[in-house]
Amino acid sequence: MTELTRELADKVLAAQPFSVLLGARIASYGDDEAALELDVRDELRQQNGHVHGGVLAYLADNTLTFAGGLAFGPQVLTGGFTISYLRPASGPVLRARANVVHAGGRQATCRCELYDVDPGGTETLCAAAQGTVVSVRRS
Amino acid sequence: MTELTRELADKVLAAQPFSVLLGARIASYGDDEAALELDVRDELRQQNGHVHGGVLAYLADNTLTFAGGLAFGPQVLTGGFTISYLRPASGPVLRARANVVHAGGRQATCRCELYDVDPGGTETLCAAAQGTVVSVRRS
Amino acid sequence: MTELTRELADKVLAAQPFSVLLGARIASYGDDEAALELDVRDELRQQNGHVHGGVLAYLADNTLTFAGGLAFGPQVLTGGFTISYLRPASGPVLRARANVVHAGGRQATCRCELYDVDPGGTETLCAAAQGTVVSVRRS
Amino acid sequence: MTELTRELADKVLAAQPFSVLLGARIASYGDDEAALELDVRDELRQQNGHVHGGVLAYLADNTLTFAGGLAFGPQVLTGGFTISYLRPASGPVLRARANVVHAGGRQATCRCELYDVDPGGTETLCAAAQGTVVSVRRS
Repeated sequence: MTELTRELADKVLAAQPFSVLLGARIASYGDDEAALELDVRDELRQQNGHVHGGVLAYLADNTLTFAGGLAFGPQVLTGGFTISYLRPASGPVLRARANVVHAGGRQATCRCELYDVDPGGTETLCAAAQGTVVSVRRS
Repeated sequence: MTELTRELADKVLAAQPFSVLLGARIASYGDDEAALELDVRDELRQQNGHVHGGVLAYLADNTLTFAGGLAFGPQVLTGGFTISYLRPASGPVLRARANVVHAGGRQATCRCELYDVDPGGTETLCAAAQGTVVSVRRS
Repeated sequence: MTELTRELADKVLAAQPFSVLLGARIASYGDDEAALELDVRDELRQQNGHVHGGVLAYLADNTLTFAGGLAFGPQVLTGGFTISYLRPASGPVLRARANVVHAGGRQATCRCELYDVDPGGTETLCAAAQGTVVSVRRS
Repeated sequence: MTELTRELADKVLAAQPFSVLLGARIASYGDDEAALELDVRDELRQQNGHVHGGVLAYLADNTLTFAGGLAFGPQVLTGGFTISYLRPASGPVLRARANVVHAGGRQATCRCELYDVDPGGTETLCAAAQGTVVSVRRS
């Protein structure tokens, strides 16, 4: 299979218009972990000033998918996931780290932790997700 | 408690900058169902031209929250949810319908179905979600 | 494929020692719904006298699997599921109804509602589940 | 609050008739982790000879609850959980380890890994769960 390298991961993310709209970037990729992050701008908030839950859900979805790519290469899609919101996030940075819990023939179960990153760089866990990523490459 | 009327639901949605960025609108509200929809523009797609899973996850999250508002009024937040992606969505419209399965003292369990709506208005189910909405009003 | 008829469903359930231990039976099968039930005896309770959550989880898991059999026949297994507990259940009967939300090539998304059935036969919803069932037949 | 010690955890488990029926025992408790295990006997299997998914679901549910007890003491109940089945389990021992990801005022999000333990004591991951435990003590 084609390996999903850091360079290719950057290209895949840049080819997702919705990820570009939200300003997501690969923070790190490989060594058993995929990490994505984005800068929290006002357009990403809800009515109380916190990051909208949908932004957290987007970042969980996408980071889980990239984690699945560690197992299966770039031809993957997320079959579904569960997210628990733990604390409101404010930014200025939102970071998600995901890893593969188990990879079978065509399906990987991955977990993701989402962190609110304050101006000093301290990470506070704000959501936890678990999902399933499916390999869709032709074999 | 303050009831979450259609008029107030419109105001709450308009006060969420992320919902404004995505172009979400209330399709209908009340009679045991909350429905939100958005027009699928290219900025909301992924690398293969389909609607990004994160857009579906956003719409599930937010429609579940508004469904919870049917039980508890506007002071609600979503505690977490599960989403299963069933088929790729292309638009031109994405619509989500959510209802309350059970509402206890401070927590409601809601379900949401997401539909890809084609130019003729035909709805095709593309994702199914289930989540928990918590009342945060002071009693 | 082999169809999973009511008769075959009874045989599959009888071949599951754990289902026999719990006393599960098929309540109805077909017409887009699989229903299982069991009599609540004291061995199935937790420390407060309610039905143990694990019994509800077992019944959700198994009823989801049989619902998947409506789509794919008997060669199915459940990939995973989510359950929300809504109210304590006391019996004397516990009943679960599941249906197929969507069936793709090899994977079905199903939903299940669990009911506490009182001596008069009235059903009260006590848990709601959503899960994924995979076809494992060789094609 | 009353702390949930190892001694009390043993008593709580022994007071659950369903846990007694399944033969569950506390493997370890404290130090940020709750571990439960049970011996796999034939009554706990499904039609193919593997441990029934409902047994895994029971053990996930209960171990998540005991993990929540690390945060909140014995007056807890599980609000819901998600489980992904990764591999069939055969025993002779099934072990689950759960920890608290985040504990807020009255709700904890916990994760659980389930292991099939072979005769030599080697653990193989067979399921992964994430759930919510609620404190129900009167404050």
